[in-house]
Amino acid sequence: MKIILDAMGGDNAPDANIKGAVNAINKIKAEVVLVGKEEIIRSKIKEFYGKGMEEISERLKIYNSTEIIEMEDQPTVAIKQKKDSSMVVGFNLLKQNKGDVFISAGNSGALLAGATLLVGRIKGIDRPALAGILPAYKKQLILMDCGSNTNCKPINLLQFAQMSTIYIRNTFGIDKPAIGLLNIGTEETKGNELVKESYRLLKENAEELDINFIGNVEGRDAFSGKIDAIIADGFTGNVFLKTTEGLGKLVKKSLKESLLKNIISKIASVPALPAINRFSKTMDYKRYGGALFLGVKKPIVKAHGSSDEKLFEYTILQAEKFVENKAVDKMIQAFDKNRN
Amino acid sequence: MKIILDAMGGDNAPDANIKGAVNAINKIKAEVVLVGKEEIIRSKIKEFYGKGMEEISERLKIYNSTEIIEMEDQPTVAIKQKKDSSMVVGFNLLKQNKGDVFISAGNSGALLAGATLLVGRIKGIDRPALAGILPAYKKQLILMDCGSNTNCKPINLLQFAQMSTIYIRNTFGIDKPAIGLLNIGTEETKGNELVKESYRLLKENAEELDINFIGNVEGRDAFSGKIDAIIADGFTGNVFLKTTEGLGKLVKKSLKESLLKNIISKIASVPALPAINRFSKTMDYKRYGGALFLGVKKPIVKAHGSSDEKLFEYTILQAEKFVENKAVDKMIQAFDKNRN
Repeated sequence: MKIILDAMGGDNAPDANIKGAVNAINKIKAEVVLVGKEEIIRSKIKEFYGKGMEEISERLKIYNSTEIIEMEDQPTVAIKQKKDSSMVVGFNLLKQNKGDVFISAGNSGALLAGATLLVGRIKGIDRPALAGILPAYKKQLILMDCGSNTNCKPINLLQFAQMSTIYIRNTFGIDKPAIGLLNIGTEETKGNELVKESYRLLKENAEELDINFIGNVEGRDAFSGKIDAIIADGFTGNVFLKTTEGLGKLVKKSLKESLLKNIISKIASVPALPAINRFSKTMDYKRYGGALFLGVKKPIVKAHGSSDEKLFEYTILQAEKFVENKAVDKMIQAFDKNRN
Repeated sequence: MKIILDAMGGDNAPDANIKGAVNAINKIKAEVVLVGKEEIIRSKIKEFYGKGMEEISERLKIYNSTEIIEMEDQPTVAIKQKKDSSMVVGFNLLKQNKGDVFISAGNSGALLAGATLLVGRIKGIDRPALAGILPAYKKQLILMDCGSNTNCKPINLLQFAQMSTIYIRNTFGIDKPAIGLLNIGTEETKGNELVKESYRLLKENAEELDINFIGNVEGRDAFSGKIDAIIADGFTGNVFLKTTEGLGKLVKKSLKESLLKNIISKIASVPALPAINRFSKTMDYKRYGGALFLGVKKPIVKAHGSSDEKLFEYTILQAEKFVENKAVDKMIQAFDKNRN
């Protein structure tokens, strides 16, 4: 297996990308191909580790590319014009089967545009979408769409439910993942027009499409551990995701400040630190890795733009698992079957 | 001042309502009028405190009503037909100036319908809406609309911004409260049609309407303490609110379980408990009380349906402050001025 990593994308590129790859390489069996400016990558490795790349691992590779898609670049234009950018080169390697999965923390719009333009949609799927992984009680919660489709139709939400089901079944080994529709009440009559119509469509088609649709889910029950995936249009899903992130930040900051408020609480908190760290780890959505862009013909992982070396490491481990489980192939088969 | 409390509304009524009123009475100057079945209320007080109501405080009163609007009642029908319900009687006392604020934890739909039908909208306001209070970094965050208007137009969001401004200025003493529009990115071009058009309207009218509009706000920055109010349609606002509640529950549960995981962490966490409790208190959105229904001619507070005695106590304290600051009168004046 070959994992293609955009070495030049993200707020902390290329340092965090390179360090993340080095951290991950001995925890995986796959090769990691760093796509970017070869000279820079080689000199950074020398600087960080005092030795050459080949001495670190023979499974660590470089594929040279000379351009970079910047955060402020207009997505579609950048994908079309920057032909030798790390992102476009990465996509082309993936398309030509010179790699099995592509990871990038770069310009999100360009990543989604490139995925559709260069790799292509799976037949039968109208809108690919981002499936994010969030923490929930003693397990993870998949959220789809995390924000790639601001305006959705009910058919899109139905397909998100199908894709989530196939992904979760083949990655987490849950045979009948519980899929909920994000809404503001559990009753059928609740919500705006989009969710009401989506509810109807999901209910009607759940059995035939092998979706374990459990109905409407409110945000307050989303993290209970009883739901495997939450389906929403990209606007609502993104509000949900970022609210979770925002409150997570507040929790960390407030807990830290409460513990360090004065010298007494500082000393008193020392014995409790292992437990508190265990708690912080549970709450850290980042440790699950990036978001998967489902609905395109090859595995593509959108790493967080602010990824540090630890997060790149997690995302690489996650990507290997994602490829191993062949969720994308199974998605292609399932949607092909539905069409016949 | 007289605070009218629906003694029969809410999941824990009438016990929690009565206990909350008794807890609050010596912390406020106002009278509290318990509206509900007099016989039941009197016997409960006797049971809980071993003495009569008059012996507890002469500012604690009862106003008898014989019916109850149940959670499953159809809102508008219930308001029209159950004329002697605690909720309708409470509204009528408020309307007839026999009280200054009405608090209820009962059927939300009926409360909102009754507020509009029996008390009436302020002239110039198209849609009254619920303003909720959430925890943020070292301060509170107002969220409007929390869920009373599932389908909104841009003009509604503009009015929510005006109402929030007047409310915050007159309750928290912040002269120019920072008002943000809930969106999935900070750029002007982000979001669905409603938020894009609302952004334009807010920007155009902010100066004239004395709104300190700071632009789009993402959920991840909402709790930073830099924003005083977040404006959203009721669907998106309710998703935001309930996500906050859901994650809050997960945080509490996970922290508790981490601390109690084994005997070592149990013992180790004891000295840190004051700090951890301080943290839990910061995160508890309930301690801010209920949500205010702004845009109607009199102060109305929607207490949480699951209110316990502590929460009723908080909500009564909050209601007294709300009346003292005359935010509703100032809202009536401001919208009257805008119309001329």
